[in-house]
Amino acid sequence: MQDFSYQRRTRLHFGKNALDQLPGELAKVGKTILLVTGGNSVKKSGLYDRVKDCLAKAGKKVFEVTGVKPNPRVDLVRQGVAICKKETVDMVLGLGGGSTVDSAKGMAAGALYAGDVWDLYQYKAPCEKALPIGCILTLAATGTEMNGNSVVTNPETGEKNGLVTPWALQPTFSILDPSATLTVPPDHTAYGCVDIMVHVFEQYFSQTPDTPLQDRMAEAVLLTMIENARKLRANPKDYTARANVMWCGTIALNDILGLGKAGDWASHVIEHELSAAYDVAHGAGLAILSPQWMTAALEAGTDKFEQAARRVWDVQGGSALDAAREGIARTKAFFKEIGAPVSLRDAGIGTERIAEMAKRAVKGGEIGNYRKLGLKEVEAILRASA
Amino acid sequence: MQDFSYQRRTRLHFGKNALDQLPGELAKVGKTILLVTGGNSVKKSGLYDRVKDCLAKAGKKVFEVTGVKPNPRVDLVRQGVAICKKETVDMVLGLGGGSTVDSAKGMAAGALYAGDVWDLYQYKAPCEKALPIGCILTLAATGTEMNGNSVVTNPETGEKNGLVTPWALQPTFSILDPSATLTVPPDHTAYGCVDIMVHVFEQYFSQTPDTPLQDRMAEAVLLTMIENARKLRANPKDYTARANVMWCGTIALNDILGLGKAGDWASHVIEHELSAAYDVAHGAGLAILSPQWMTAALEAGTDKFEQAARRVWDVQGGSALDAAREGIARTKAFFKEIGAPVSLRDAGIGTERIAEMAKRAVKGGEIGNYRKLGLKEVEAILRASA
Repeated sequence: MQDFSYQRRTRLHFGKNALDQLPGELAKVGKTILLVTGGNSVKKSGLYDRVKDCLAKAGKKVFEVTGVKPNPRVDLVRQGVAICKKETVDMVLGLGGGSTVDSAKGMAAGALYAGDVWDLYQYKAPCEKALPIGCILTLAATGTEMNGNSVVTNPETGEKNGLVTPWALQPTFSILDPSATLTVPPDHTAYGCVDIMVHVFEQYFSQTPDTPLQDRMAEAVLLTMIENARKLRANPKDYTARANVMWCGTIALNDILGLGKAGDWASHVIEHELSAAYDVAHGAGLAILSPQWMTAALEAGTDKFEQAARRVWDVQGGSALDAAREGIARTKAFFKEIGAPVSLRDAGIGTERIAEMAKRAVKGGEIGNYRKLGLKEVEAILRASA
Repeated sequence: MQDFSYQRRTRLHFGKNALDQLPGELAKVGKTILLVTGGNSVKKSGLYDRVKDCLAKAGKKVFEVTGVKPNPRVDLVRQGVAICKKETVDMVLGLGGGSTVDSAKGMAAGALYAGDVWDLYQYKAPCEKALPIGCILTLAATGTEMNGNSVVTNPETGEKNGLVTPWALQPTFSILDPSATLTVPPDHTAYGCVDIMVHVFEQYFSQTPDTPLQDRMAEAVLLTMIENARKLRANPKDYTARANVMWCGTIALNDILGLGKAGDWASHVIEHELSAAYDVAHGAGLAILSPQWMTAALEAGTDKFEQAARRVWDVQGGSALDAAREGIARTKAFFKEIGAPVSLRDAGIGTERIAEMAKRAVKGGEIGNYRKLGLKEVEAILRASA
């Protein structure tokens, strides 16, 4: 195990009545709120009206940015930043899925930065402060509710960049009512489940020795996800399964599973190029790429892959390598079973831009940690995903 | 799963070089520090000198309370409170094991309370604020490093009371260097391991349905503990095993395993009477009592006991009840194997005060949640532990 430091500041409110905590949270911040939302789903469900009602009762002055899309764009973040600066906003409140909350985080960071907010996503300037961020989550997937990360796309440059901060972008509060996810359609439910599981894989498959608790806690999330993603495939209205998946989503990327070990994240880097190029849903891209990454990663060792095969996928007998391969095959079959694409072709994507995506993925040098990947290896992973 | 809210404010620094973070932490607080320590072990190891040196270099004015014993006494806490009030202390820094840090927490709480600090441990007044608390931990056991709990004994009244706060008593920082636990003698290493495992059991054995992630994360801690406690029995100087046990101790009682479910805690309530009466080490008392509590708890259902038997103790075949009983037998055998007493007789304790201890345990009414226990049931558990 390596040395580590860890802190979360987020007050997490979870459950059917979690929204009841919103007035108490609003009482702790200033008067001017920027509310950030996506499309119409929160309006159809009535959640938007309930939140607006809370804000009105709390006497807040509310500005709004709406229309956040999956793979959220920096131009909308810039709009929010401009409002924050002009109106001296006290808190940015994201109401929606990971893209909406990540956009809210970008606005909160940009509000306290003199230059263009995209600088922060390019690490041209450090992101050490941000306005307070509130989160009301409607999709179980990214873990943004309890981490300091924000991923935003710049369509002008074709980049999709992740800004990872140890502190500044952690929400001060997050409200997680699993009921709010009951209406998520089956495809996006599946993509969210894949995203959660791949977050675990990125931390699980590590060369750092002697991390048994981290490994077993990661397996706990994977086993729970397998059971509950299947339940949601059968019945999307299963509150209990929604709740278990939502709690998995938080644990999967509140960074606790990766403490004291090196994470990999190559699948994410490659996927960011895929969704920057094709605007595919992030979880769908991960379902396509991560099993191929796993196969490529076997070159650097089989131990953790065999361990996952035995403990998570219940693979019996066979050599270590056989078991590892069988575990990867079951991972891919599981993604397919719950309704995610497992090839570029499944997602209607051709092979024309593979060389370009590979080149962009390694523009900063080799990627990944479990196995260091250069241009050739990344291109091979993309071709194997065709 | 039930609704829940969760937040931790503790900055956790873990690893061989964790103490390097102390100067940065000291820079964040005021000038006057109350340093709280136990016996000579931190002096012998040189840790005390290193901490004093850090404090001196940071230009701090340092007062000290020393001599904290296991089952720490309220009179020493009162001494610390008096110093805090007289010298307007800015932070209370506990350097030692759970008893030392719990005492430091009591001093920090008492410093901001006008009456006698024991009132807080009797819940006569709410504990909503405390001076900042720093923790440098030298024993893996209680989880105090990342929770808001403090347990203190009042020898005048014979009470050992736990003060549980959602926020006030969480350390602002905790420094966990597993090297500091390398010199803990085998018996106290074993008691710490039992304490950690029973913290997990108290949250695991619950009647709240549908908590698969919580259950599996709890099993992750138990499996890691079984493996690493055995390693420490064989070689107390195994840094990696010490590190794994220490990280288990934090996860076991930073409350994350019990979110969304009712905990039990009857074993702890009964043990507090045992150690209040006989000054036995808390983990030793738990090793004696908790297997008997488990057997008594079977009356209220076997599901979770069977689950633990299958997943943690690898019990194969048999009926649910047979498996549950076998799991309990293996728990007790494991406690014995690592060097903990598993009967009152093992600890040199007779049966004379059983009726008295049982009566005190239920003085506030029935205890426990998994199975509600009255006077008769508690007395039976104590007699079965003889």
